[in-house]
Amino acid sequence: MAGRNSLFIPGPTNMPERIRLAMDVNTEDHRALSAPDFMVPLFEDLKKIFRTEKGEVIVFPSSGTGGWEAAITNTLSPGDKVLTARFGQFSSLWIDSCRALGIEVEDIDVPWGEGAPVTQIAERLAADTQHEIKGVVVCHNETATGVTSDVKGVREALDACNHPALLYVDGISSIGAIEFEMDAWGVDLAVAGSQKGFMLPTGLGIVGVSQKALQAGETALCPRFYFDFKMMINQTRTGFGPYTPAMGLLRGLRASVDVLLEEGMGNVWQRHHRLAEGVRQAVAAWGLSTCAKTPAWQSDTVTGVMVPEHIDGQEIVKRAYQDYNLSLGGGLTQVAGKLFRIGHLGDLNECMLFSALGGAEMVMRDLGMDIEPGKGVGAAIEYWHKNK
Amino acid sequence: MAGRNSLFIPGPTNMPERIRLAMDVNTEDHRALSAPDFMVPLFEDLKKIFRTEKGEVIVFPSSGTGGWEAAITNTLSPGDKVLTARFGQFSSLWIDSCRALGIEVEDIDVPWGEGAPVTQIAERLAADTQHEIKGVVVCHNETATGVTSDVKGVREALDACNHPALLYVDGISSIGAIEFEMDAWGVDLAVAGSQKGFMLPTGLGIVGVSQKALQAGETALCPRFYFDFKMMINQTRTGFGPYTPAMGLLRGLRASVDVLLEEGMGNVWQRHHRLAEGVRQAVAAWGLSTCAKTPAWQSDTVTGVMVPEHIDGQEIVKRAYQDYNLSLGGGLTQVAGKLFRIGHLGDLNECMLFSALGGAEMVMRDLGMDIEPGKGVGAAIEYWHKNK
Amino acid sequence: MAGRNSLFIPGPTNMPERIRLAMDVNTEDHRALSAPDFMVPLFEDLKKIFRTEKGEVIVFPSSGTGGWEAAITNTLSPGDKVLTARFGQFSSLWIDSCRALGIEVEDIDVPWGEGAPVTQIAERLAADTQHEIKGVVVCHNETATGVTSDVKGVREALDACNHPALLYVDGISSIGAIEFEMDAWGVDLAVAGSQKGFMLPTGLGIVGVSQKALQAGETALCPRFYFDFKMMINQTRTGFGPYTPAMGLLRGLRASVDVLLEEGMGNVWQRHHRLAEGVRQAVAAWGLSTCAKTPAWQSDTVTGVMVPEHIDGQEIVKRAYQDYNLSLGGGLTQVAGKLFRIGHLGDLNECMLFSALGGAEMVMRDLGMDIEPGKGVGAAIEYWHKNK
Amino acid sequence: MAGRNSLFIPGPTNMPERIRLAMDVNTEDHRALSAPDFMVPLFEDLKKIFRTEKGEVIVFPSSGTGGWEAAITNTLSPGDKVLTARFGQFSSLWIDSCRALGIEVEDIDVPWGEGAPVTQIAERLAADTQHEIKGVVVCHNETATGVTSDVKGVREALDACNHPALLYVDGISSIGAIEFEMDAWGVDLAVAGSQKGFMLPTGLGIVGVSQKALQAGETALCPRFYFDFKMMINQTRTGFGPYTPAMGLLRGLRASVDVLLEEGMGNVWQRHHRLAEGVRQAVAAWGLSTCAKTPAWQSDTVTGVMVPEHIDGQEIVKRAYQDYNLSLGGGLTQVAGKLFRIGHLGDLNECMLFSALGGAEMVMRDLGMDIEPGKGVGAAIEYWHKNK
Repeated sequence: MAGRNSLFIPGPTNMPERIRLAMDVNTEDHRALSAPDFMVPLFEDLKKIFRTEKGEVIVFPSSGTGGWEAAITNTLSPGDKVLTARFGQFSSLWIDSCRALGIEVEDIDVPWGEGAPVTQIAERLAADTQHEIKGVVVCHNETATGVTSDVKGVREALDACNHPALLYVDGISSIGAIEFEMDAWGVDLAVAGSQKGFMLPTGLGIVGVSQKALQAGETALCPRFYFDFKMMINQTRTGFGPYTPAMGLLRGLRASVDVLLEEGMGNVWQRHHRLAEGVRQAVAAWGLSTCAKTPAWQSDTVTGVMVPEHIDGQEIVKRAYQDYNLSLGGGLTQVAGKLFRIGHLGDLNECMLFSALGGAEMVMRDLGMDIEPGKGVGAAIEYWHKNK
Repeated sequence: MAGRNSLFIPGPTNMPERIRLAMDVNTEDHRALSAPDFMVPLFEDLKKIFRTEKGEVIVFPSSGTGGWEAAITNTLSPGDKVLTARFGQFSSLWIDSCRALGIEVEDIDVPWGEGAPVTQIAERLAADTQHEIKGVVVCHNETATGVTSDVKGVREALDACNHPALLYVDGISSIGAIEFEMDAWGVDLAVAGSQKGFMLPTGLGIVGVSQKALQAGETALCPRFYFDFKMMINQTRTGFGPYTPAMGLLRGLRASVDVLLEEGMGNVWQRHHRLAEGVRQAVAAWGLSTCAKTPAWQSDTVTGVMVPEHIDGQEIVKRAYQDYNLSLGGGLTQVAGKLFRIGHLGDLNECMLFSALGGAEMVMRDLGMDIEPGKGVGAAIEYWHKNK
Repeated sequence: MAGRNSLFIPGPTNMPERIRLAMDVNTEDHRALSAPDFMVPLFEDLKKIFRTEKGEVIVFPSSGTGGWEAAITNTLSPGDKVLTARFGQFSSLWIDSCRALGIEVEDIDVPWGEGAPVTQIAERLAADTQHEIKGVVVCHNETATGVTSDVKGVREALDACNHPALLYVDGISSIGAIEFEMDAWGVDLAVAGSQKGFMLPTGLGIVGVSQKALQAGETALCPRFYFDFKMMINQTRTGFGPYTPAMGLLRGLRASVDVLLEEGMGNVWQRHHRLAEGVRQAVAAWGLSTCAKTPAWQSDTVTGVMVPEHIDGQEIVKRAYQDYNLSLGGGLTQVAGKLFRIGHLGDLNECMLFSALGGAEMVMRDLGMDIEPGKGVGAAIEYWHKNK
Repeated sequence: MAGRNSLFIPGPTNMPERIRLAMDVNTEDHRALSAPDFMVPLFEDLKKIFRTEKGEVIVFPSSGTGGWEAAITNTLSPGDKVLTARFGQFSSLWIDSCRALGIEVEDIDVPWGEGAPVTQIAERLAADTQHEIKGVVVCHNETATGVTSDVKGVREALDACNHPALLYVDGISSIGAIEFEMDAWGVDLAVAGSQKGFMLPTGLGIVGVSQKALQAGETALCPRFYFDFKMMINQTRTGFGPYTPAMGLLRGLRASVDVLLEEGMGNVWQRHHRLAEGVRQAVAAWGLSTCAKTPAWQSDTVTGVMVPEHIDGQEIVKRAYQDYNLSLGGGLTQVAGKLFRIGHLGDLNECMLFSALGGAEMVMRDLGMDIEPGKGVGAAIEYWHKNK
């Protein structure tokens, strides 16, 4: 099939050439004398992406899920309770993982299309005068629905009742793309993966850890070895870790951090918002709605586009791929078939997004949907024109 | 600037990953025992792209212009006369080059936007009963205007009066992209470059040579060394040439030939036509016209889009690049400022072209042109939908 | 510093160009319809490297250490006892990891330079009539000393007393390089990493699992999520896993498996032996001894070269790197300073090894050691000449 | 065949990773507004490699042979006479090329193994009181024999009799590797290629041109178009040339120039000398002699190793390649079978050269030559040890 694949899944994301090249190198000696010169500044600069000066950032050779496991096992003991909400595939996955690792989970069920219910969380925390809740878990950006939660609000809820629980944030599809402030929001555990905002291949679990979280580790009894913070933090500080580091990906991470910091985190977030808003204008022009129930929930990294009842969202995804070499995201479990997703995070610009918007229009046209071809693209253009 | 450059100049063209990887290799010994196993079949397969069984294909480490110089100096003597037409930047360049190399050129001036004037050529050939004209030179695809000439018609004109002149074709922006039949059209010299239909970086001049042309070389007195057919044809036949071959590019050429032959030349041509027609539908929807004066002249590899008088086409090209990382082609000499060009040859598909069409619309919107954003994209979608 | 780094650490190993190129690709959609066509045969072919038809091979985005954690937590319950021996850095690390994960370890202390003590293990197993020992853990190739253990002998010891314990093998620096027969030796858990015999960057933990081990998982109570066999085995069978796969590395793994199977596992092992023997001939010609105490223990993937008492082995490693861009391995903990290590596994041939041997000779000459320069290289040549 | 090819032909040479990566990029728009920012400083910095402040450096998409043709046709008229010497394959090739291009050549025959005969040239120039000789052509480094000529001596011969002839130097296998001083030696035309000291793939002819040579171009009547200095010098000055530039190779050239200038030309030359001397010590230790007749002629970029009468040098080259994946250079025409060549120019260090020396020893051992294996490597080590 001629031409490039147009990749608009909500991660892994498009890799900038500069990052690709940074990894395309011969094997190197990770124990070379010069290794710390590379390693130590990398971990220092990573903090700027997480927006933490007080915390640490630890990197595991794993996917983001591994980073999540690290966050849990390094700070909790079997039987400890965490409070969280379930409003999509990924927020649910974290509940499963906590339970598998011996953690008790109190989960608030929220309709898909909304995010973490700050008011309910606040009430629950206020009621927990015995501080049985050891952690509050927030999925910052639910990739399955295109919903962003209010992490800062959850922090305020904790503070309002002086609750000592740790604040865990799944930032896998948010960090490096949309506003995230680890220190300012008092996040204790912030989990990212290499394949989203960092624009790298999958393979690194990147975890921001507050001093409070590190301290919790002293008494946390969950068994752990591979994902042990204490052993890995040595790598952060000395350049030499407990086991072989994934040097190729770390070289890529260096380039990724450079790319992000050169653009500036504020600009990165602003660009993601501007591009996302263009996509949402297109969706509206198509006469369709987003999975996110209100604008407040809409994510700047992925948009779930609800399709009419008689249309199978999965068919759109399938045809896009087969007929036009366009990769979109499908609906998962509860929303399978009900939507398709356009990922718009990472290394993107307007012209690239026309491939996604135009391609989606073409597939919807092929499927006989009542869409005027070009309407969505035109709405995005109009928005981007007016908001340069 | 975030995101990929959207490249829609009329060459060099987008490089498929497979071709990029084929060249990204360590230096190799071009005199290794195994070299012929690579070289000989490559030159054999190149013939299938040129559609010749009787001729030879010779490859020089040079740009296409070098291939052109080779075609001239290997077949003509100083003072020999060729007949040609001038209807754009590149057809003019060939005239300059012939003159610089000592060849007398009789050129027919044609308005830009038209191609080789078959009737005039036929008349001129019929009148040349002494056969003073040694060659007829045709620019198959004029990249500056987006015009395709009728090579077959010129061959018929030659045959009609039994004229023995050699038929020279500049196929730099046609071969490997649009219909080209070296044997069937009786082309004697067919010049291509690596950076257009072959989807490679610039650096190879690729020349198809008929037996008649090779024979003409026996008495052709133009001085030549680097571009000597006789020396280079050895490489074609034995795998070893007179000087160091550009192995990296040749590795890429192997991948390019594979990519083209796997798609099938007929399919390649058909895809280029289908994509080009979508672009032209967009241009019409914008209310603009192509530089090519009639549909018959319209090129399937590049479209020159005429802009209204009060608009500077160069400003569109400049803004596209600066504001949206979109590379379009500008107008050259006679049409400078009067048009912008969208290259649509090489490794392309519909979704990629939305970047060009949507991007052009956005720039025209920014410039205040009376274009309804999305209209062009919509017209292309409608065409592609109906012509799957 | 001009010229390439000569990499002779005992892993990560030199990456063949073909494997490098396989990974140097744009991001791809791991949920594409075509994903299973890639995934399923890959896991099937991996079995041929592990030499298992009955077992399964599971791949985690992690280093080999993660694969090790997977082997433990999927088959044992907290408090279960395993029997093992400690004879180097890596055999010790596994003991630490087992203990961290709640497993009781009975370890036999063996002098560094020897491997797993089959006789002692056999005695201990015979004495365990209550079958309190749930697993026997063998470090197949101790990278710190250059010692290979007799896995087959341990299996025979188990069989001799009909002991039902699972057989765990650390094959990180052996599988894909030296003889390893998962089925024939009755190995239940075989742990490999991407960065040794597989010639890939670090980032994949590759675990061979017997049916008996899978069954043990039904009752194994160690908490686990990221490294859960059951979830991951789906990826093996359907092409879709529980979390984002490390596609880049998996593309490389495909190339790696192809490279290994094309050479043939028997040939791979034979080549490693031949090259290793040349290295050992050089060591002998230098008048030095290997860390491995007898030829029976000598590893075909790494040689520990003992240095005279007055010489600091670490100084050799440091100078090799700083003065000659040659990466050797140093001595760890117990043997720090007492040896240097030459890794000779992965994508190597004779001429490449001359860089290591000549380089080591040059450094030893610089340090004033009583070595006749060229002697070691000459001995290797003589051996390779006679054993073509 | 496992392991990397050990490449020791006298060019194309090993490509540093940094240069490889510089070229491994997507197609870019060579007419982009930003093009001059890249082009103009590149051409400026190239002068530092040629060691010229007064001259210009012009780059053609061609091999070095094309650069040579450019030097001739831009400065001479048909029938002009040049004086040169023939002492190897490449000095002979230049004579052929001059003649093919209509230049009269007076050539002094010199035994292979010697270089340009300064005394004879001086005598001939002194006798040419009518200044019929328009140019003196010197092959600086004869790659076929491993001989370096005294360019400075030829300049002195010209100056001694105030002869106005242009000084043409074939520096293809010298510039960027061994001492070359365009201004100081009064070189008028200096021809280099990308694939030797510049460590790039073949594909660029790089020509240093003095102001005197540029002036000669005003009256030079050799026909030329593709290789026209005047048209190309625009690229040097404005960033935009007469035809499509080979951007991929130019990106590599940028990296190459950076690599060379960062090391410093003096250091580059010194490194080549030191490495070459080690090779020569090895040759002597083998009891063999170099093709260069005296040390004064010995080249620091390639060594021709004479083999005993009963041995076929070509067999050494063949076996090295087939049995050990080692690429050496063979003997050409007059010395075919009488020698093999070790290229030692470009991105090399001691450990890499052990592959060539050890490999050659092993092949000679296989062929039954009376060589003590390791002797040559040992001699090189001893030399490098004493000359750190």
